[in-house]
Amino acid sequence: MASSLAVVILAAGAGQRMKSALPKVLHPLAGQPMLHHVLVNVAALKPERIVGVVAPGEKAVAAAFAPHRTVVQAVPRGTGDAAKAALGALKDHQGPLLVVYGDAPLVTASSMRRLVAACRRTGATVGALGFVARDPSPYGRLVVRRGMLEKIVESKDADAAEKAIDFCNSGVICLDGKHVAALLAAIRNDNAKREFYLTDAVAIARAAGHKAITVDGEETEFQGINSRAELAAAERALQLRLRTKHMKAGVTMTDPDTVWLCADTRLGRDVSIGPNVRFGPGVNVSAGVEIKAFCDIEGARIGRGAIVGPFARIRPGSIVGENVHIGNFVELKATRMGRGAKANHLAYLGDSDIGAGSNMGAGMIAVNYDGFGKYRTRVGRNAFVGSNSSLVAPVRIGAGAYVPAGSVITHDVPAGAVVFGRARQVTKRGLADELRGKLKLRAAKAKSGKKK
Amino acid sequence: MASSLAVVILAAGAGQRMKSALPKVLHPLAGQPMLHHVLVNVAALKPERIVGVVAPGEKAVAAAFAPHRTVVQAVPRGTGDAAKAALGALKDHQGPLLVVYGDAPLVTASSMRRLVAACRRTGATVGALGFVARDPSPYGRLVVRRGMLEKIVESKDADAAEKAIDFCNSGVICLDGKHVAALLAAIRNDNAKREFYLTDAVAIARAAGHKAITVDGEETEFQGINSRAELAAAERALQLRLRTKHMKAGVTMTDPDTVWLCADTRLGRDVSIGPNVRFGPGVNVSAGVEIKAFCDIEGARIGRGAIVGPFARIRPGSIVGENVHIGNFVELKATRMGRGAKANHLAYLGDSDIGAGSNMGAGMIAVNYDGFGKYRTRVGRNAFVGSNSSLVAPVRIGAGAYVPAGSVITHDVPAGAVVFGRARQVTKRGLADELRGKLKLRAAKAKSGKKK
Amino acid sequence: MASSLAVVILAAGAGQRMKSALPKVLHPLAGQPMLHHVLVNVAALKPERIVGVVAPGEKAVAAAFAPHRTVVQAVPRGTGDAAKAALGALKDHQGPLLVVYGDAPLVTASSMRRLVAACRRTGATVGALGFVARDPSPYGRLVVRRGMLEKIVESKDADAAEKAIDFCNSGVICLDGKHVAALLAAIRNDNAKREFYLTDAVAIARAAGHKAITVDGEETEFQGINSRAELAAAERALQLRLRTKHMKAGVTMTDPDTVWLCADTRLGRDVSIGPNVRFGPGVNVSAGVEIKAFCDIEGARIGRGAIVGPFARIRPGSIVGENVHIGNFVELKATRMGRGAKANHLAYLGDSDIGAGSNMGAGMIAVNYDGFGKYRTRVGRNAFVGSNSSLVAPVRIGAGAYVPAGSVITHDVPAGAVVFGRARQVTKRGLADELRGKLKLRAAKAKSGKKK
Repeated sequence: MASSLAVVILAAGAGQRMKSALPKVLHPLAGQPMLHHVLVNVAALKPERIVGVVAPGEKAVAAAFAPHRTVVQAVPRGTGDAAKAALGALKDHQGPLLVVYGDAPLVTASSMRRLVAACRRTGATVGALGFVARDPSPYGRLVVRRGMLEKIVESKDADAAEKAIDFCNSGVICLDGKHVAALLAAIRNDNAKREFYLTDAVAIARAAGHKAITVDGEETEFQGINSRAELAAAERALQLRLRTKHMKAGVTMTDPDTVWLCADTRLGRDVSIGPNVRFGPGVNVSAGVEIKAFCDIEGARIGRGAIVGPFARIRPGSIVGENVHIGNFVELKATRMGRGAKANHLAYLGDSDIGAGSNMGAGMIAVNYDGFGKYRTRVGRNAFVGSNSSLVAPVRIGAGAYVPAGSVITHDVPAGAVVFGRARQVTKRGLADELRGKLKLRAAKAKSGKKK
Repeated sequence: MASSLAVVILAAGAGQRMKSALPKVLHPLAGQPMLHHVLVNVAALKPERIVGVVAPGEKAVAAAFAPHRTVVQAVPRGTGDAAKAALGALKDHQGPLLVVYGDAPLVTASSMRRLVAACRRTGATVGALGFVARDPSPYGRLVVRRGMLEKIVESKDADAAEKAIDFCNSGVICLDGKHVAALLAAIRNDNAKREFYLTDAVAIARAAGHKAITVDGEETEFQGINSRAELAAAERALQLRLRTKHMKAGVTMTDPDTVWLCADTRLGRDVSIGPNVRFGPGVNVSAGVEIKAFCDIEGARIGRGAIVGPFARIRPGSIVGENVHIGNFVELKATRMGRGAKANHLAYLGDSDIGAGSNMGAGMIAVNYDGFGKYRTRVGRNAFVGSNSSLVAPVRIGAGAYVPAGSVITHDVPAGAVVFGRARQVTKRGLADELRGKLKLRAAKAKSGKKK
Repeated sequence: MASSLAVVILAAGAGQRMKSALPKVLHPLAGQPMLHHVLVNVAALKPERIVGVVAPGEKAVAAAFAPHRTVVQAVPRGTGDAAKAALGALKDHQGPLLVVYGDAPLVTASSMRRLVAACRRTGATVGALGFVARDPSPYGRLVVRRGMLEKIVESKDADAAEKAIDFCNSGVICLDGKHVAALLAAIRNDNAKREFYLTDAVAIARAAGHKAITVDGEETEFQGINSRAELAAAERALQLRLRTKHMKAGVTMTDPDTVWLCADTRLGRDVSIGPNVRFGPGVNVSAGVEIKAFCDIEGARIGRGAIVGPFARIRPGSIVGENVHIGNFVELKATRMGRGAKANHLAYLGDSDIGAGSNMGAGMIAVNYDGFGKYRTRVGRNAFVGSNSSLVAPVRIGAGAYVPAGSVITHDVPAGAVVFGRARQVTKRGLADELRGKLKLRAAKAKSGKKK
């Protein structure tokens, strides 16, 4: 069996260019904190342990690493120092140690896996993930001679020959656990910034006669995130990946550029998605579902053959059954709709269970909140709830019951009952002119009142 | 008079990369099945007949060709074989025969017309539509010598000189009806795939001393569609064409990239369209209409000077009169709004006729469905329907009638009447604290009940 | 002190390619007329006066210049003639005169300021703003020799050497006020179009021994607007500038391409904006506000920590307090929401004052319009207004009052009161089957009636 893998995730950077009260690695991408993506990608390598390096006092960052251990880098003295801070949590580790960045969420598990595998295969003490850059000028360069990585040189320290290299440093590095303590101890800070650079481990290892290698990935994986504009660019790159994946699997998107997905969004075959649909975390859509334009869906399951939208909002905890129709200006929250149930127009269904085949009329509200508690509305199968009705929870509407339009229902309704909760219509013939006269007068008075 | 034109549309491809239960040529583009666009483009050439070639058992595809005749290609043995399958339906045809593809909806009528015209003018037996490709590697090449098309060579069969050609095969070909049977009969399948390639007709015609010519079109016309990503790319190309056409004609779009049109969308001069507006099929918008952001409009006419949106949805069968206002979170379905009528906020008007100058209040619903039948609501001119009212169809509200807020109207209201359908307000002074105490207690109990 | 600056804005062009009844310079960009942007940019230079040149009869254009003076160019005879028309309004002006275009709203104040400063510093009689074009072919070229601008040559009049120049004319020109009358008088119309070109002033000045200089800006600033497509392109360029500015200042945008801003939009640090949010003019959003997807906000202030959307619409005159929640399908118009107040679902709040901590239920409507006048609804602190309730303005709901669901409130409610305005529920056991039988029969009859 191969020796086990450990991963150190550096997340102690200040991120000042974000201009934010929120730590950089907690900024959201595709509905999840940036760091979450790094953790998910790293987890795919099944490391024996993950150690996070955080800045002092960053409790929210440390919490985002849970259940993984974090260590604190007391003073920001460079990546080499940050990696050193993790050594205490790695004392007994003998296998490869992968060092990655909390603000580089686009690095794929595949690239990291190839790096670790290459280090194991070649017995290299150091391995770096590199990429060919269209414009290498901002990046450190990987200096490779006869297949061996000799050193990593910062862009500003590169000589003319090195500047001509377009093979660049991604920052992701893999170190042999048996040598890591010695390598890190040898890194010095005799440079302009007085920082310890982890990249110096390469030249140190080579000088000591160790092997150092490179593995290459795609430039798009290695966009760092230091500003809101770069955050938006990373979001775009991530969305592109997700959209492409789903289209390949048989999902139609009228305009993929206007579909926002989460990493965990699940979409069945022949799902059709109109323009402008946002998926929050935790959505599972079955095959053949049609999601029309302008929908916002989060934390919900949607069954086969359902039709959703346009202008529908489905909130967490909702389960939309097979062949259910959810129409425009309808909100579902923690609501289950049984097979074939319908809520087609301007309705709010909060904390509800709607039985199969039931019809919720336009403008109906499941009144789940009384100012203090939230309660459930339970509607049986094949019931009819008329337009503009209010079902005041907690309340049960029995199967097959019929609630006419405009009713306010505060007590349980037995199955098969008809229930009224509205006033009788009273028509006053010929009174409209008189009423209009009064209203006109009132409006004129109000107007003149304002002028005074 | 020129001899008449026949068109064969090949639509028997399997489309496996679509990963779909729906046949490829029926996937929607700009609100219509892909094949519909091909049929519309071809129809502009006024062919004497159109013949579709479909795979066995594809009834939905055959139906989409109606009223045109379809023939079945029994076994998928290449494009030459598919064309041959159509011969039975073309026995008496003497004029040019244009062969096009059901999955190439972007080929313009103009390009096809130029090809047919060039064949007629030159007396060519074969004519092919070509294009200069930025990257020719995936395409067959058109080998032209001294103005004569000598052969079409598949990319993988091309020699070095042929690979250097960037003039590529679109697939669209025009054959002389008098020679087509002989040409197709001469195509052989002595190739790696054991398929009959229609492109071989060129070399066969040349070997027999016939003329063969080329006509060139734009690369953008010839994007084939084999995957959902290519479907999305074709949608984008089609939308770009449609947007450009309408802007040229005097339509303002704040952000054209977020306006989704149908091929049949009609927009008058000085129509202004905000970001994120989707037009389904059958929309006709008169001059000077303002459509604000976030609207979804389908199957509707909108009269001069109307203001629609934001967040409005207008469904098929609706006629929005001049100077009508349709505001946010309002849905119209099969509803006519007379001149100057208004529905500005959170309303559902289904199966309704609203008279000129009438005002539909916020939250009002035209209750068109009782669980079994759908009925119309008819409101006369200059009527006022108050907020949160429900008009339970079938019902008539006479001209000038006044329905105060919160009324449920179930019986016809005569013109000029005031009608109430709501309870009288009863105020219980000082009771709110007591009520709140009870509600708080209930909430606490419900909470502790959940814990158990 | 430097001599004062005057600016002439040429806005007499016909704009026929816009195909519009609206004058070109009044077409909107980022929520304001095109000309407004030019005026704002020019105003940043603090000119002593601004003079607009308009076509005869264009009152709306002249009005858009107010309070600045306008002069009429009687006949469209070129830019030189247009500038000459302004001379009457500039008789006593001795300082630099900047000539800009009403249809070039992307020219930055910074570029114009640099041009004026360079003219002052060098004592040049003429200065032109130029740019290096990727494709110079459509533009006039700036012919510069030994640092001196010799002439501006129209593209069609350029010789081979001049055609090779990629330094192009932006149209923006700065003339010394002391010489401007003489220069303009010397311009002749002995050209194909019989027009007086302002650009000829350069060669005239040079021939008379004056200095002429250039200052360069970015090509993106100098997109002219002659068609709806160019209008859309300018909108895109302007939005890109605005989005970048806000991201730099610490605003997160999930998808910046789908956020539409106005030049006056103010967004605090750590404001987070989901996909598809449109800001109209006059919006001020405090730090830490979350605006979810699909919102439309105009003329409103939003306080710290508020959460808005998705699918919220906030209209002019609204003030959303700190920690307020505005949820889906909610419209605010001229409404103030006190700190911590909530309106989370399908509500219309028009002309309302909602006290701090109050909860507005789903489907509630502040009924502000009776067909004649508009009235305010005033709700005190910590009140509860139940779902589907209508508050018929003018009406006051006292602090702490409790309005249960489905109530229609037409009279003031004292603080602390509970108020009902709804009918009592009446349940008819077992009647649903009978009712359904009747409805089914009615539907069948209606159907057969239609068939007849």
